[in-house]
Amino acid sequence: MKKITIFDSTLRDGAQAEGISFSVTDKIKVARALDAIGVDYIEAGNPGSNPKDLEFFQHFCDVGEGANALKHAKLVAFGSTRRKGILAKDDANVNALLDSGAGAVCIFGKSWDFHVTDILNATLDENLEMIRDTIAFLKTRVGEVMFDAEHFFDGYKNNSEYALASLAAARDGGADVLVLCDTNGGCFPDEISAIIEEVVQKFDLPVGIHTHNDCEMAVANSIVAVESGATQVQGTFTGFGERCGNANLSAIIPNLQLKKGYACIPREAMENLTQTARFISEVANTSLNKRAAYVGQTAFAHKGGMHIDAVAKNPESFEHISPDAVGNARRTLMSEVAGRSTLLKKIQEVRPDIERNSREMGRIVEKLKEQEHKGYQFEGAESSFALKIRRVLDDYIPLFELIKFNIISEDMASASRNSNSTAVIKICVDDATVLPAGEKSVEVITAEEGNGPITALDKALRKALEGYYHDQLAAVKLIDYKVRVLDSNDGTASRVRVLIESTDGIQKWSTVGVSANVVEASWEALMDSIKFKLIMDRDARYAVFAY
Amino acid sequence: MKKITIFDSTLRDGAQAEGISFSVTDKIKVARALDAIGVDYIEAGNPGSNPKDLEFFQHFCDVGEGANALKHAKLVAFGSTRRKGILAKDDANVNALLDSGAGAVCIFGKSWDFHVTDILNATLDENLEMIRDTIAFLKTRVGEVMFDAEHFFDGYKNNSEYALASLAAARDGGADVLVLCDTNGGCFPDEISAIIEEVVQKFDLPVGIHTHNDCEMAVANSIVAVESGATQVQGTFTGFGERCGNANLSAIIPNLQLKKGYACIPREAMENLTQTARFISEVANTSLNKRAAYVGQTAFAHKGGMHIDAVAKNPESFEHISPDAVGNARRTLMSEVAGRSTLLKKIQEVRPDIERNSREMGRIVEKLKEQEHKGYQFEGAESSFALKIRRVLDDYIPLFELIKFNIISEDMASASRNSNSTAVIKICVDDATVLPAGEKSVEVITAEEGNGPITALDKALRKALEGYYHDQLAAVKLIDYKVRVLDSNDGTASRVRVLIESTDGIQKWSTVGVSANVVEASWEALMDSIKFKLIMDRDARYAVFAY
Repeated sequence: MKKITIFDSTLRDGAQAEGISFSVTDKIKVARALDAIGVDYIEAGNPGSNPKDLEFFQHFCDVGEGANALKHAKLVAFGSTRRKGILAKDDANVNALLDSGAGAVCIFGKSWDFHVTDILNATLDENLEMIRDTIAFLKTRVGEVMFDAEHFFDGYKNNSEYALASLAAARDGGADVLVLCDTNGGCFPDEISAIIEEVVQKFDLPVGIHTHNDCEMAVANSIVAVESGATQVQGTFTGFGERCGNANLSAIIPNLQLKKGYACIPREAMENLTQTARFISEVANTSLNKRAAYVGQTAFAHKGGMHIDAVAKNPESFEHISPDAVGNARRTLMSEVAGRSTLLKKIQEVRPDIERNSREMGRIVEKLKEQEHKGYQFEGAESSFALKIRRVLDDYIPLFELIKFNIISEDMASASRNSNSTAVIKICVDDATVLPAGEKSVEVITAEEGNGPITALDKALRKALEGYYHDQLAAVKLIDYKVRVLDSNDGTASRVRVLIESTDGIQKWSTVGVSANVVEASWEALMDSIKFKLIMDRDARYAVFAY
Repeated sequence: MKKITIFDSTLRDGAQAEGISFSVTDKIKVARALDAIGVDYIEAGNPGSNPKDLEFFQHFCDVGEGANALKHAKLVAFGSTRRKGILAKDDANVNALLDSGAGAVCIFGKSWDFHVTDILNATLDENLEMIRDTIAFLKTRVGEVMFDAEHFFDGYKNNSEYALASLAAARDGGADVLVLCDTNGGCFPDEISAIIEEVVQKFDLPVGIHTHNDCEMAVANSIVAVESGATQVQGTFTGFGERCGNANLSAIIPNLQLKKGYACIPREAMENLTQTARFISEVANTSLNKRAAYVGQTAFAHKGGMHIDAVAKNPESFEHISPDAVGNARRTLMSEVAGRSTLLKKIQEVRPDIERNSREMGRIVEKLKEQEHKGYQFEGAESSFALKIRRVLDDYIPLFELIKFNIISEDMASASRNSNSTAVIKICVDDATVLPAGEKSVEVITAEEGNGPITALDKALRKALEGYYHDQLAAVKLIDYKVRVLDSNDGTASRVRVLIESTDGIQKWSTVGVSANVVEASWEALMDSIKFKLIMDRDARYAVFAY
């Protein structure tokens, strides 16, 4: 199997998309997910133009070769050729690439003569020397230097001799890979194919392809480039990027590997494709396109009656690949069971007595459908799902119940420092294992304040439970809190889904709440988080719903 | 210019998408929009399997040739070949096609031998006769009969002789067009191209292409089919359809017509492309993909500073076509990475006296940096930015100021129905143009309730302003509300960014608020939204910050 190198630019070109803004922590999370699925390169930023990017690279320098180092991928710092009129060694941005400590750099330079003269205001020769000098300077200091030939295809169509000269300059500087970019996304497969073939023939260097989706053909253009001899594909993991986005790696990787026999990522990683795409979308706080090829929620959903019948007879009849191959699931309107097999498998780990076709299983599936219809989504919140199962199976221990809460929020100016919200909470603890002998239940009312209604509520709940579960809850911390508006046609009256991630320092778990009211939805997720921790402490098998 | 026939199936195959359900009125609206943009065929339903579809066709029969008739497009009824073992004239579904009164019909039949034997449970010969007989029966009764060869490409790859025999049967029945379908969406451009070429050579009939997007290559596959001799393209207007969707006509039409010189729709209709795609998405109650090629909201949006500067010099530098050509618009997004020139251009539209290197400009850029550091992001909220500029330029009219607010939220169980939150607000209106003569400012205190603290606060603010800005605010509506947690390492104590989109029915504008408290951040965005509307009404130049 021929190896195709996968170069992910989600954290660099992807971050150019409208509405995308990664924090350093987000970037670290995404890099770890990309590493886990086995991409070869992670282009993580432009340290010359963005100090936040330097902080990201510093993190991985500090991690070094230790247990937290990336296992598979090489980090790439991105930057432009040096400015005209100075030497590369004196260019602050070029030097910032070295400061990043990244093991590889990717330098973009101009290949389209019109860009050189009209945008860069340089002479054609000056630009060639900028390319050569920058790469030559870096090549003696960094292991690997790639050259992104910006607007290569448009340049080639306008002045092929000059476009090729820009590649020759990169080669002369010592570039390891020549990456041809369809920067404006306006090229057609036949053009890509013919031009790649010529470059592959003319240069004795690996050739890469970098396309944009302005004609909705970035994936096909990447595929035909590989079929014409390119051996590196640059893209972003769910296709985001400036304008119409970059080539979508979550479609390109399975296209090449599952259907054309190329090797892109480790074979066993392919079944994590869907989960990785969804995870990256979550971190970017964007919704993954439902219809996304391979990884979308409806990619293997069958609605038409005839299609459903045919798929039941033979899935191949209306599916080009098996959804399992990419970790996605078949969904049909008749039976939602198939798509949930992962969750159902987990149920059997805590309740081995429940069989696949049992009445209990039927009730669980019903419950799941009903909840998903309301806007719950348990893919990112399996711990909440575990609690719902217990309720369905009459296995439920309430531990504690809400009697009421009441929150007062004030505007910042009126409020005291760091506590513009006050929560009053009243709960009933009915867990015999923690109550004094003979007591069946105890009511507790207490109050706390905090910055924001949800912080105040969280603190009040913990305080109310302190006397009963102090040791168990002492280490529990919220580590993530996300709000997603479900249906935004009604402005602020829309329903929201709140996703909370918690940890006790050993396990992590996620819980979910849905309501028209962000406070109510948060309360639901908060309560589930605490309850799940208490249940997991009693029955270690529940750890299967944590991670 | 070679004519390529455009066959839209938004109302038939598009309606197979999850979550899409058109009423008869919706279908009529969509058909009129498709007709206005000049598609050739509108496949509007399967009257045999859906009575709602018959009602739709009836509407246009009643309209007849009058003023409300479609001007350009021909309606197509869709159905399958007759059942085996009977004659076409005795098949109820086939007769329903005639009852529809549609001027053309499209019949799908099996071309993949495996489908015939394993799904249809018919012999290979029976299937050929079903195709021939159905088309022959219809052809004597309807002007035009098209044949959709289902799974043609997969069938051809498995048994090319049989796949071609299915086309021959359709031809022998009198079919006007042979449409080759990549029903499972699993084919690659090279396969499509080779197979189309062969069919075009073998059959003396127009050939059509119908692809699905399961490999994210439906658009490219349609394009290469046309380049290989197909003269009809079937698709849906924004790409929706079962699983990953159908070939997206709103990308295919401009690809072919603007970039390859084919004639698809009337030349003057092209500039309505964006509006038509957005209208159809609205009717389908789906959000059009922001990144959609040609018609998406970000299709011509530029964020990177270098890109913005280059586009200002020459749009061709980062745009493959002019956005005007398809009725879309260029947008430059304000952000950290944006060049000074973007900012300057917008600022100069409202304050032509501010120069590029002036002290004021320096202060504005400083302000922008400081705000972005705090977590503001103005690329999606230019209206808030406009208000901040006014403050920096001492051009600020307060209009009204908050004195305090106070919100009480209760848990759902304790609260009354649909109003678990109550907001008390006190503001000071100091806008001389709306106050009684002689008054400098008036304090207003009022309260409202709603489902969720933000809804309550929004309602209370509007109520407080009602006496002063009733007419201006009556039409203002929140249409979107987004919450993004900025740095989620501290759980619920993280900072959130709230983005609000508002409309007065004519303009839309977006505002932003950032705080550790979701209520406070929402308040900021709400207040900006109302203030922006009031300012824009006084000074129409501010509309440059709306859209």
